[in-house]
Amino acid sequence: MSVINRPDVLAEVDAVFDAYEQALVTNDVAVLDKLFFDSPNTLRYGATENLYGYEAIRAFRAARPGKGLARTVTARVVTAYGDSFAVTHIEFRREGDPRIGRQTQTWVKMPEGWRVVSAHVSWMEG
Amino acid sequence: MSVINRPDVLAEVDAVFDAYEQALVTNDVAVLDKLFFDSPNTLRYGATENLYGYEAIRAFRAARPGKGLARTVTARVVTAYGDSFAVTHIEFRREGDPRIGRQTQTWVKMPEGWRVVSAHVSWMEG
Repeated sequence: MSVINRPDVLAEVDAVFDAYEQALVTNDVAVLDKLFFDSPNTLRYGATENLYGYEAIRAFRAARPGKGLARTVTARVVTAYGDSFAVTHIEFRREGDPRIGRQTQTWVKMPEGWRVVSAHVSWMEG
Repeated sequence: MSVINRPDVLAEVDAVFDAYEQALVTNDVAVLDKLFFDSPNTLRYGATENLYGYEAIRAFRAARPGKGLARTVTARVVTAYGDSFAVTHIEFRREGDPRIGRQTQTWVKMPEGWRVVSAHVSWMEG
């Protein structure tokens, strides 16, 4: 591991994370699928489900209704370690819901581009 | 990024992750503090709190009652990317609580050793 938050690396991660968020709120499943690393090691803990492996995540997205995914990001922290690893964190709100949502993702720069290898989404308990 | 789950790297991460879990259930705050990266970028989303920066995490641990931290790990996935980056995931249960807990951590190998740079703990919604 070398430099933390090298500006060019951070710019790459910010761009791909923005693309992910845009795809999430518009339920652009093709982009979401593309941005997760296609591997049995990839893992996503969602608010209501624990998904092990890329195929389980893909199947979940394919089955999920596309409505109600809009959210407002209320905090955002992106940190890059060296030139090929990064973590992204947001807090978010959904309209009409008093709870605070949290999303963390770990990204690795693969030969094909930045990909999420681990994700965790939850509601904070009051 | 190079090899995924190089055996020697995975062995290092497994060992430090075991040490973390042991420290957590025994509330060995000194070890927990040591294993988080001392940086304002370090972040921990807990079940009931969002902590930004090493100092906020340290203060939280110092104030937390040491009782009731015992838990049983019911699933565990550790994946290492290259020689200095890893993600750890567990599902856990607490006695008398029907809920499924989830913990994800991102570890980076710093000059001083493996350190957690990002953590997220939550209860899955039923």
